[in-house]
Amino acid sequence: MIIGAIEAGGTKFVCGIGNEDGVITERVSIPTTTPEETLAEVAAFFKDKQVDALGVGSFGPVDLDESSSTYGFITSTPKPHWNNFDLVGELKKHFDVPIGFDTDVNAAALGESLWGAAKGLDSCLYMTVGTGIGVGALVEGKLIHGLTHPEMGHIMVRRHEEDSFDGRCPFHGDCLEGLAAGPAIEDRWGKKGQELVDSPKVWELEAYYLAQAIANYVLILSPKKVIVGGGVMKQAQLYPLVREKVKEILGGYVQSEQILEKMDEYIVPPGLGDNAGLAGAIGLVK
Amino acid sequence: MIIGAIEAGGTKFVCGIGNEDGVITERVSIPTTTPEETLAEVAAFFKDKQVDALGVGSFGPVDLDESSSTYGFITSTPKPHWNNFDLVGELKKHFDVPIGFDTDVNAAALGESLWGAAKGLDSCLYMTVGTGIGVGALVEGKLIHGLTHPEMGHIMVRRHEEDSFDGRCPFHGDCLEGLAAGPAIEDRWGKKGQELVDSPKVWELEAYYLAQAIANYVLILSPKKVIVGGGVMKQAQLYPLVREKVKEILGGYVQSEQILEKMDEYIVPPGLGDNAGLAGAIGLVK
Repeated sequence: MIIGAIEAGGTKFVCGIGNEDGVITERVSIPTTTPEETLAEVAAFFKDKQVDALGVGSFGPVDLDESSSTYGFITSTPKPHWNNFDLVGELKKHFDVPIGFDTDVNAAALGESLWGAAKGLDSCLYMTVGTGIGVGALVEGKLIHGLTHPEMGHIMVRRHEEDSFDGRCPFHGDCLEGLAAGPAIEDRWGKKGQELVDSPKVWELEAYYLAQAIANYVLILSPKKVIVGGGVMKQAQLYPLVREKVKEILGGYVQSEQILEKMDEYIVPPGLGDNAGLAGAIGLVK
Repeated sequence: MIIGAIEAGGTKFVCGIGNEDGVITERVSIPTTTPEETLAEVAAFFKDKQVDALGVGSFGPVDLDESSSTYGFITSTPKPHWNNFDLVGELKKHFDVPIGFDTDVNAAALGESLWGAAKGLDSCLYMTVGTGIGVGALVEGKLIHGLTHPEMGHIMVRRHEEDSFDGRCPFHGDCLEGLAAGPAIEDRWGKKGQELVDSPKVWELEAYYLAQAIANYVLILSPKKVIVGGGVMKQAQLYPLVREKVKEILGGYVQSEQILEKMDEYIVPPGLGDNAGLAGAIGLVK
């Protein structure tokens, strides 16, 4: 079976060809400009590939309710040109094959559970900390959907007492994303994260917010593995700081060996590296 | 089919007889003293009832991992005598029937989805605010389990700036339960909630914490219905306060008619009233 995979992001559309085992044999990156331009390039890439199915993990918010008239749309995004764009409908015009569709982070969680750091588990959480903060989760073998899809990057967190930064989420100000995504780091300190490697205070603060969020996710979802990736997590010093702080916040309450003794194996980077999203898109077809 | 149901609580064990339609024909309340005493009374109640199966929703933490050697145990509870008690094993000694087992709040969420306020939905959240704060949830038609079971009552929330109360959770101090369960209200204000009906500040503060938690649950789980019950919620003035505050916190971000326009139907009291737990225990058998 030839599976086409699309990781539809706000900066680029990564397209690939893979098989049922998640093996990706070809990939290409297409800039996200206007829907017309970007989709034309996407269609051109897949044109002669004879895919049997397409899997799409998309930036959001998206409409995942199959009974809805706007199923498959990117809905209320602030991204110019993409508001209320019928992504699945447009792809269907070009390719008469089954299309699996979910959020980019739900797809990545699925990919990690099939072939990555959570392989064989029926439960995991995938968090990406970059330009924004997105989180997807697999619970009891299923990706979470409900009223809409999760928007875990926007939960409210307790402010660090030494942090006077206002936060920069256009909806919530100082929610998690507003305080801890890459642009928040840059706004707060006046430099990009990469230029602040030797400033411990920066990473202590960052770990404080990420750990609070992860502790809340653990208490609410009880995932069997917590996978954290994204541009900000290229600062590998964050992992031990986050693990320690999560353990401290949970205070011994969650009686699990993973948390009490094996935190190094519990909160981990993506096993699939930057391929988690694309592999996950393949998984959406399976 | 005759189904025996047990809502195993820290104060009382409510036992009942029901059928597949959740109709409860008999119920009795047995004080929770020692496991020996309490279970003897439970066994006596069910002795001649000829139940075909038993459903048990229990206070926790409990071990729900069927592959574990302590499956069916109440594990690390601070409640005297009940630490590491093999509840399911003890029941099996008396009744040679299939036993369904889950947390009390997961059972209640299930009961509400089968016969109550979330009837027909494959997704809902059930929260009880009383002596403690417990939350169960149904996601994609399944009750949430993972590493352990959810412990959503213990999430960290942002403190109200006028609240100097330390919180009283023995594990986390000022987590949600530590700040907003019944005993926290009593400790903070020096009186029980029932005696504080005419003190708006009490309920403003309470709604502030509950709404934060619910907003986080909504962002993480996206439940199709949020059901809130328990002793503290007998103060019905809390519902409009909580709804308004949840809407304010979400800031228009979650694009759903339920949240933007129908909040009165979205955050609601239990449809089954005080029977949610017992009905849910029946549901665990189905």
